[in-house]
Amino acid sequence: MNNCLIAQSGGPTTAINASLAGVINAVEKSEKFDKVYGLLNGITGIFDNRDIDLTERFSSQESLERLKVSPAMFLGSCRFKLPPFTEDSSLYEKIFDFFEEKKIGAFFYIGGNDSMDTVAKLSEYADMKDSSIRIIGIPKTIDNDLCEIDHTPGFGSAAKYVATSVLEVAHDTAIYKLKSVTIVEIMGRDAGWLTAASALARNRYSMAPHLIYLPEVAFDKEMFLCDVKKLLEERDNIVVAVSEGIRDNEGRYISASNETDIFGHSQLNGAGKALEFLIKKELGVKVRSIEINVLQRCAAHLASLTDIEESYELGRQAVLCAEVGETAVMVNMVRTNSLNCDYQVAYGDVLVKCVANQVKSVPLDYINEAHNDVTDKMLAYLRPLIQGEAWVQYKDGLPEYVDISHL
Amino acid sequence: MNNCLIAQSGGPTTAINASLAGVINAVEKSEKFDKVYGLLNGITGIFDNRDIDLTERFSSQESLERLKVSPAMFLGSCRFKLPPFTEDSSLYEKIFDFFEEKKIGAFFYIGGNDSMDTVAKLSEYADMKDSSIRIIGIPKTIDNDLCEIDHTPGFGSAAKYVATSVLEVAHDTAIYKLKSVTIVEIMGRDAGWLTAASALARNRYSMAPHLIYLPEVAFDKEMFLCDVKKLLEERDNIVVAVSEGIRDNEGRYISASNETDIFGHSQLNGAGKALEFLIKKELGVKVRSIEINVLQRCAAHLASLTDIEESYELGRQAVLCAEVGETAVMVNMVRTNSLNCDYQVAYGDVLVKCVANQVKSVPLDYINEAHNDVTDKMLAYLRPLIQGEAWVQYKDGLPEYVDISHL
Repeated sequence: MNNCLIAQSGGPTTAINASLAGVINAVEKSEKFDKVYGLLNGITGIFDNRDIDLTERFSSQESLERLKVSPAMFLGSCRFKLPPFTEDSSLYEKIFDFFEEKKIGAFFYIGGNDSMDTVAKLSEYADMKDSSIRIIGIPKTIDNDLCEIDHTPGFGSAAKYVATSVLEVAHDTAIYKLKSVTIVEIMGRDAGWLTAASALARNRYSMAPHLIYLPEVAFDKEMFLCDVKKLLEERDNIVVAVSEGIRDNEGRYISASNETDIFGHSQLNGAGKALEFLIKKELGVKVRSIEINVLQRCAAHLASLTDIEESYELGRQAVLCAEVGETAVMVNMVRTNSLNCDYQVAYGDVLVKCVANQVKSVPLDYINEAHNDVTDKMLAYLRPLIQGEAWVQYKDGLPEYVDISHL
Repeated sequence: MNNCLIAQSGGPTTAINASLAGVINAVEKSEKFDKVYGLLNGITGIFDNRDIDLTERFSSQESLERLKVSPAMFLGSCRFKLPPFTEDSSLYEKIFDFFEEKKIGAFFYIGGNDSMDTVAKLSEYADMKDSSIRIIGIPKTIDNDLCEIDHTPGFGSAAKYVATSVLEVAHDTAIYKLKSVTIVEIMGRDAGWLTAASALARNRYSMAPHLIYLPEVAFDKEMFLCDVKKLLEERDNIVVAVSEGIRDNEGRYISASNETDIFGHSQLNGAGKALEFLIKKELGVKVRSIEINVLQRCAAHLASLTDIEESYELGRQAVLCAEVGETAVMVNMVRTNSLNCDYQVAYGDVLVKCVANQVKSVPLDYINEAHNDVTDKMLAYLRPLIQGEAWVQYKDGLPEYVDISHL
């Protein structure tokens, strides 16, 4: 029992492969573990017998460095919810047979709160079966909505992309002498962290975004129109940052469809478009909406160095945790000083059952009283996370990322 | 008569400020010209008396270097069509009075084919009035649709952003083991150059975009569904690049609205969304559309070094043209070798009346026979234009661009 197994699950981020690289690096350096295998398409890779030898695949330092800065998920993903083993244990048996066959001593699962649910269930099953396997979660999500961690890997890079894009949009919208409104729709279904990060775009010459709406507080159409109208009296071009998940005071999404995914989440569709049509109809000014879309989670050419380094270190920490015998935990980071001091984090871990299926929303003191902006506390929290530019190599004019032809 | 005046017009690009920087640099080095003034908001800056002293504003090399890599338009823009002076000469009189007052010996206008119309009209008026003023156009447009030039400044950077984004989207879409289609809608109303540039995203492990549709050939819904269906039999994830301006064989935009701008162009709305709905309805697979939107014209953090350097040089060439007494011309670039040899351009100029109001479409031998891809000829034409990464300085995690608080 001296090999490791790792898989990735949920939606992609720019930093999730950095955590994978951290695990590969730490296993290579480990005296306890031999090899690390990667499952393709999350836990479902076991059912399809799809795995690759990562120790062999990333034997050179150069290949590991490239993996570290490559977007999305080298191992692919799945959206698969494991049933409780009390209801159906057959899948669990398959999984643990696979562990046995491959001599797996530690299993790492990189993902968000749905994936931590899988980690919790597998840990419980292992405990019941008196298995010695170590099962460890490694966090990721651009939404920054995991509990028991200062911030999630992947968030800093998405925040840097959002802030940079909003700054560039501010330059783009400033060119005409006429009244205009530009709505930028940002990801984050239930948590407004990423939308809040648009505030980092502000500098000495530009206050864009001029309005910010998060899903944590009810969205009031009348107040919104009032805010925009007032600002248009003061200046020509308004930039509004809005979360895809804004809801009215009865909890109805602004322009939601009725579809839900297999986790029961509503599939959202066009809060930005809804506000564009509202402004066109009610105020009659020039208006455009921009949905940053998946680029905010995969634009690795603009990754935050802080984010990439932290994600890598969390991968390494997960292996160290397994080495000392921990299980049923998720590795985490804690900010070791107050918001206004030099930024520093300490790595540790937390029981995964405290994280699974929980959501960390933006606290109300990070949102202003008028509910149309964030506070200085939010800015102090966010700013360290986007620092530094990750090293991406270019070839023939394009970033050189890791080969994903096995997916 | 020893000063210069410059203005910018039309839509923004990442490289238009590089041409402005080139003009400032060349005027500073010129023995013939003293100062260069910048008009705010294009030619309309004259009517509002809004101009700034650029020689003073950019006296340091550092400030000029920052301007060179800053997105959109430092001087702002306008969408203003000058009436023929035979119909109304009052605006022309105002403009030439301004030239006189500021001792302007050369006027430079950076813009696309609408702006070259302004250059042509002012040149004719100057000729009629026996004015000695030199009037010179400097090209720009991300659409690459100007005639009499190998490619336009701003296009290479937009092409690099489009290709990089499509590559990153390819990584993002590859993660799930299920059939999916991702539509990427790219700018270019009448010319498919920028959409074609998505083909540069292809590499040894990814053939995305798998289908490419340009506005130069009629779009056939049935053929499109057939193409997608066939590809879905071979592989899981399809990426489709589509121009915002695709039309059916009767010339009707795929999902156009009825609005037109003041130049009579249709305001397009959602070719990508139209194809998304079509696939959802007809094929029932997972589908998403992504509109890259204005980011493709303002994401200066990913500018092409080739593009920035050429745009800068065109600005310098414009001043040299004025020095030797040329007028009524647009500066241009010619590729001095065939497509498959080492890339090199020569700078020159061309009569502006050959450029004004003309559109350079993609030639048919750059499009494949099935009308769903581009040919190797197109790739050989495009590849040199995205080479190199422009130097952008970061501060506090964000690009440092030029201050535009005067707009």
